[in-house]
Amino acid sequence: VSAFVSTNAVRRVNVVGLGLIGASIALALTERSWIVTGVDADAAVGPEAVRRGLCAAVGLERDVELTVIATPVGQVPAAAQKALHDTTGIVIDVGSVKANIVAAVDDPRFLGTHPMAGSEMHGLDGADPSMFSGAMWVLTPTPSTPDSIIATVGAIVSSLGAEPIVLTADHHDSLVAVVSHVPHLAAASLMNVANAHADDHAALLRLAAGGFRDMTRIASGRSDIWLDICEANRDAILEGLDALVAALTSTRAVVAEGQRDVLRALLDTARAGRANLPSRVARPQDLAEVRIPIPDRPGPLAEITGLAAQLGVSIADLELSHSVEGDRGVAIVLIEAAQADLYRGGLLAKGYKPSVRPLS
Amino acid sequence: VSAFVSTNAVRRVNVVGLGLIGASIALALTERSWIVTGVDADAAVGPEAVRRGLCAAVGLERDVELTVIATPVGQVPAAAQKALHDTTGIVIDVGSVKANIVAAVDDPRFLGTHPMAGSEMHGLDGADPSMFSGAMWVLTPTPSTPDSIIATVGAIVSSLGAEPIVLTADHHDSLVAVVSHVPHLAAASLMNVANAHADDHAALLRLAAGGFRDMTRIASGRSDIWLDICEANRDAILEGLDALVAALTSTRAVVAEGQRDVLRALLDTARAGRANLPSRVARPQDLAEVRIPIPDRPGPLAEITGLAAQLGVSIADLELSHSVEGDRGVAIVLIEAAQADLYRGGLLAKGYKPSVRPLS
Repeated sequence: VSAFVSTNAVRRVNVVGLGLIGASIALALTERSWIVTGVDADAAVGPEAVRRGLCAAVGLERDVELTVIATPVGQVPAAAQKALHDTTGIVIDVGSVKANIVAAVDDPRFLGTHPMAGSEMHGLDGADPSMFSGAMWVLTPTPSTPDSIIATVGAIVSSLGAEPIVLTADHHDSLVAVVSHVPHLAAASLMNVANAHADDHAALLRLAAGGFRDMTRIASGRSDIWLDICEANRDAILEGLDALVAALTSTRAVVAEGQRDVLRALLDTARAGRANLPSRVARPQDLAEVRIPIPDRPGPLAEITGLAAQLGVSIADLELSHSVEGDRGVAIVLIEAAQADLYRGGLLAKGYKPSVRPLS
Repeated sequence: VSAFVSTNAVRRVNVVGLGLIGASIALALTERSWIVTGVDADAAVGPEAVRRGLCAAVGLERDVELTVIATPVGQVPAAAQKALHDTTGIVIDVGSVKANIVAAVDDPRFLGTHPMAGSEMHGLDGADPSMFSGAMWVLTPTPSTPDSIIATVGAIVSSLGAEPIVLTADHHDSLVAVVSHVPHLAAASLMNVANAHADDHAALLRLAAGGFRDMTRIASGRSDIWLDICEANRDAILEGLDALVAALTSTRAVVAEGQRDVLRALLDTARAGRANLPSRVARPQDLAEVRIPIPDRPGPLAEITGLAAQLGVSIADLELSHSVEGDRGVAIVLIEAAQADLYRGGLLAKGYKPSVRPLS
C-alpha cells in the first residue's frame, strides 16, 4: 500500500444500517465509484443489497476511508464505537438528533451528521441515489474534531449533491426542534383539539377546509420515530414547546384585549417570515415565485407543469395553497427568475392569470 | 301582481357588496336566470358589474325574493337592517362569524349564513359562479326563524352546488374557531417562534423542510380580515386557544416524563383524525386515496394528473405531502373508488409505485 494517496485511488466506505437513508447513501456512493461494504441488523438485507447492486460486499471492512452509521438513533453509539475500534477511517452517523450521540461517542475520528432528506419509502425499496441532491446536510463537530475530517466529510456530502452546514450539536437539536419536532407535536395537538369537538358534532370535520388540512398534514406521519425523537431531543423540544405556548398565550392576551395593532404586527411578522422561507434550491436570490389561481376544471396542474416542461422551465418547488375557507387553490411555483417571463407568457397564452415576484 | 307564485316566475335578488363572494353569488344566480340587482360601497363597482354581466341593474330592489348582504363583517348589521326595512323578501348575510350578527339583526326574515368557500382572488375579477360547488354552506337560524325561510335558502344554496348545513350561530362560531381561526393563529405563532430563533442563526430557516412549510402556509395570508375575525369571534377563539394551549401543555408533560405509551396514543389519535378528514366531495365512502411517491425528475405531476385526464379518472383532491425532513414528496390523489384499479394500472405502467386505500 502506497503512502501517497492517488487522486485515482479506490475509495472504500462501510455503511452500517441499510434502511432508507443508509441504502440511499450506499447506492449514491456506489454510483460515484466508491467500493461500498454494507451490513444490516437483518442478516438478509446485506446480501439483498449486494444483489441489487447497492453495495459490493457484506460486512465491515477494516481499511476504509469512511464508515457511515445509519442505524436507528438508539443504536448509533454502540455501532459507532464498534466501527471506531474495528476500522481505520472516519466514522459518521446520520441520526436526526445529535447532542446525545456526540456526547456518547467522544472520539476525534467521529463526526455527527444529519442529512435533512428523506421520503415516505422504507428500506432498500426506497433507495434513491439522488435523495440528497439540493438537501442541507448538517455536520456537528466538537472542539476536538480535526478540520481535515470536517473538510473530507463536507466534500463527500457535497459530492452527493447536498449542501454541508456546520453547527454545534446543541444548536442543531434546538433548530430541528423548532422547525420539525415542535411543529409535528403542534399539528397533532391541533388535530386532537378538533377531534375532541368532533365527538359532539361531526359537522366540524366537514367544515375543515384547505388551511386546516395543510396544517395537520404532518400529523398523518408514523408515530414510531417520533417517540425516539422526543426522547433523544427532549430538552430542546420542551424548550420549543414552551416558546410556542408562550407565543400562543401572548396571542391570546392580544385577542382578549382587542389590541388590533399588536395583532396586526404579530400576523405581519409571521407573514414576512413565511415569505422568506428558503426553497430547496441553494440560491433563493435567483428564484421567482409564480402564483397561479387554479380554475375549477379538470387538468390545470397537468397543464401548468406540462407547460413548464414544454418551455424548458425547471420547477424548483410547487405548492398548492388553499384559501382560508375554501378548497380552491393557487399553485405556487418556484422557478429560475431568468425564466419567469418565458413561463408567464406561456401561462397567459393558456388563459391563466399568473403573478410573479422575486423570492428575495 | 298575481298572488300565486308560478314555478316559471321571474326570481329577483339583491346582492349588497360585490367583493369576491358577493360577485360570485351574483354571477351564479344570473347564470341561473335570476334577475340580480347589485350595489357596492364603491359607486364604480355596481355599474362595472352590470357591464360585465354579473347583474342586471344597480341598486336595492324593493320587491325581491332574497337580499344577500355580502359586505365586510363589521357593516353587515346596518346593511341587513336597511334591507329588512327597504325590501320585502328574505335577507341573508355571508359573513364568516355569525353569533354577533344574528344577535344584532334579530328579525324572523333574517337568516345568517356562511359559505365555506373562497379563493385568493379579490372583487369582480375573482367572480366565479362555480365557487360554491361542493362547498359546505352553513345556515344559522334562531328559534324565531320560520322553517320556510330555512327551506328556501337551503334550496337556493343547493342550486349553487353547495351543501347546506344548519347549525346554531354559537356552534358555527366555535367550530370555525377550531378549524380555521385558531389554526391560523397557531401557524403565525409557530412562524414567529422560528423567526425569533432565526435572528440568532439564519441556518434555522434553511433547515425548514416540507412539514414546516405545510404548517405555516396559512400564515402567509392577509392579516386584515383576521383582525375583524378575532374581534367578532373573540370568545370562541379564546376558548379554542385555551384548548390548544392545554393540549400542548399536556403533550409537554408527556414528553418531559418520557411516557412513550401515552405519547404514542396521542400521536395515533391525531393520525386517525387526520385520515378521517372528509374531502371536498360529498360522499367520502365512494373515494379512494392513491399515494404516489414522486421521483426526482421533471414532470411527474404533469404525468400523474395528465394520466388521470387521459383515463377519464376524475381527481377529487390532490395534495403534495412532504416527508418529515426532506423536500421529496408523495402525491396524494383522491379519486372515485370505482376508478382506482384503472388509475393504478396506468400509474404502474408509467413506472410509478402507487398504493391505494379506501377513504373510509
